[in-house]
Amino acid sequence: MAKEFSSWVADQQSRFEDVLRNQLPSAEVAPQRLHAAMRYSVLDGGKRVRPLLAFAAGELAGADVARVNYAAAAVELIHAYSLVHDDMPCMDDDVLRRGKPTCHVEYDEATALLVGDALQSLAFQFLSEQRLSDEPSKQLQMVKLLAVASGSRGMAGGQAIDLASVGKQLTLPELEQMHIHKTGALIRAAILLGAHCGNGLSDAQLDKLDRFGKLIGLAFQVVDDVLDCEADTATLGKTAGKDADNDKPTYVSLLGLQEAKAMAHRLHSEALESLSEFGESARRLRELADFIVLRKF
Amino acid sequence: MAKEFSSWVADQQSRFEDVLRNQLPSAEVAPQRLHAAMRYSVLDGGKRVRPLLAFAAGELAGADVARVNYAAAAVELIHAYSLVHDDMPCMDDDVLRRGKPTCHVEYDEATALLVGDALQSLAFQFLSEQRLSDEPSKQLQMVKLLAVASGSRGMAGGQAIDLASVGKQLTLPELEQMHIHKTGALIRAAILLGAHCGNGLSDAQLDKLDRFGKLIGLAFQVVDDVLDCEADTATLGKTAGKDADNDKPTYVSLLGLQEAKAMAHRLHSEALESLSEFGESARRLRELADFIVLRKF
Repeated sequence: MAKEFSSWVADQQSRFEDVLRNQLPSAEVAPQRLHAAMRYSVLDGGKRVRPLLAFAAGELAGADVARVNYAAAAVELIHAYSLVHDDMPCMDDDVLRRGKPTCHVEYDEATALLVGDALQSLAFQFLSEQRLSDEPSKQLQMVKLLAVASGSRGMAGGQAIDLASVGKQLTLPELEQMHIHKTGALIRAAILLGAHCGNGLSDAQLDKLDRFGKLIGLAFQVVDDVLDCEADTATLGKTAGKDADNDKPTYVSLLGLQEAKAMAHRLHSEALESLSEFGESARRLRELADFIVLRKF
Repeated sequence: MAKEFSSWVADQQSRFEDVLRNQLPSAEVAPQRLHAAMRYSVLDGGKRVRPLLAFAAGELAGADVARVNYAAAAVELIHAYSLVHDDMPCMDDDVLRRGKPTCHVEYDEATALLVGDALQSLAFQFLSEQRLSDEPSKQLQMVKLLAVASGSRGMAGGQAIDLASVGKQLTLPELEQMHIHKTGALIRAAILLGAHCGNGLSDAQLDKLDRFGKLIGLAFQVVDDVLDCEADTATLGKTAGKDADNDKPTYVSLLGLQEAKAMAHRLHSEALESLSEFGESARRLRELADFIVLRKF
């Protein structure tokens, strides 16, 4: 990754970590244990890919970064809640996440359940308590966008399709449907919410950004499957090979490793193409597309 | 209950059931099993106390009932999701709810987890996709109000306090703090959201309504504790005496049965007092206060 881009990423991550640290309820405030567990599950975690996409789309749309901070935090809280619930024994039963014990291991299952629930509520609080758009009616659309992306026809629906797919041989379109919902919906929401914090993008331009999000969301998942196949536990900070062990369909199991890599590269090219009209303003989005697809192989 | 009031209640319940039936995703739409489980968990259930309070407050504020329908549905979905998660093995481990197997028994735990998550998202979709107020900025406040009432400093926080209280002797103020969050926050939200769908209430009037909600929310919980102590499983449609078995603090265990009843009546009187300035427009709210407190004893 180019030095200039990596320093932009580091700056965004560091500023965003401060935003989360300041905006999450303090562990000193009652109910203390719940708030401590919420902070444990959100802070110091991950690469913040969705927030980075929101910041890049915000830059493209000339948005005030103070606004994008809240939109990005809302998306990241939805992502964080989904990980907490996904790790629970009744779902993936994972004990390790980002090199730390998962929330239900560090606390307990009931607390993990409430942490996820409360993080989702807080996401919608973040989207509604500050002015994020000059037009309140546009901000209501942002609330709706995140609600739909999170719900039964978005992320939660994708997880339901995932549950139903264990032990089944899916076709490529079926696998794609699952991922378009499970991870794609929230990645698209991150980009659109970042863009909505700015002004002046036409519907056609928003459609282009949405297409970029859709393609990069799929690429992200294909790369995840490739990494899960190749990496060892130490590098990933989670239990490697878990999907294969669980007999879950992946792009690698369906296409083979080489073809999955080729697919990731193809999605990457198409994603860049959808940004062609934006010129220099889409530079960060392009760099992020490279980052997502090229991160490890 | 007076015949005229009982027919108002029946009308609201029946119309509201249609709203839910039409607005919840069809079980024919993918992911079918998740959508079926969402409908199972929401439809044909309960007295719809929170929606009734929203409709009564909407009437007081001269709100269009088509708007209140969505606000009431949003609150009811939050309530329904909390029951689904609360019934799960890691929380209360209940197998029966409203005379039917609980969601995780009828489906499975992973589905119940996703049902709750997706219902919460849908609640915020309901609050944001239709015009519920003439001013979009006021509608954003409604989103924030429900988010705060649902989150770690509202309902989910109350459940965390509840978890922490098992096996402990709480003081009366501590018990009150738990219930103000666990059930009170959502009851207050129902009343305020109903009122916000209308126009022209002053902040002072909204404060009076909020005080009414707070008192009636507490009364509701005290009555629940009394009923739980007195009723048998058949009448309640849930396992009676469960709280006492679990060594959870209740108003009855803390105050004794007679004093708990007296407290419910005292809260009821204070609640009615807070409506005194509204005259005839608060009639339904008064009747609901009677209904909530006098339902069984």
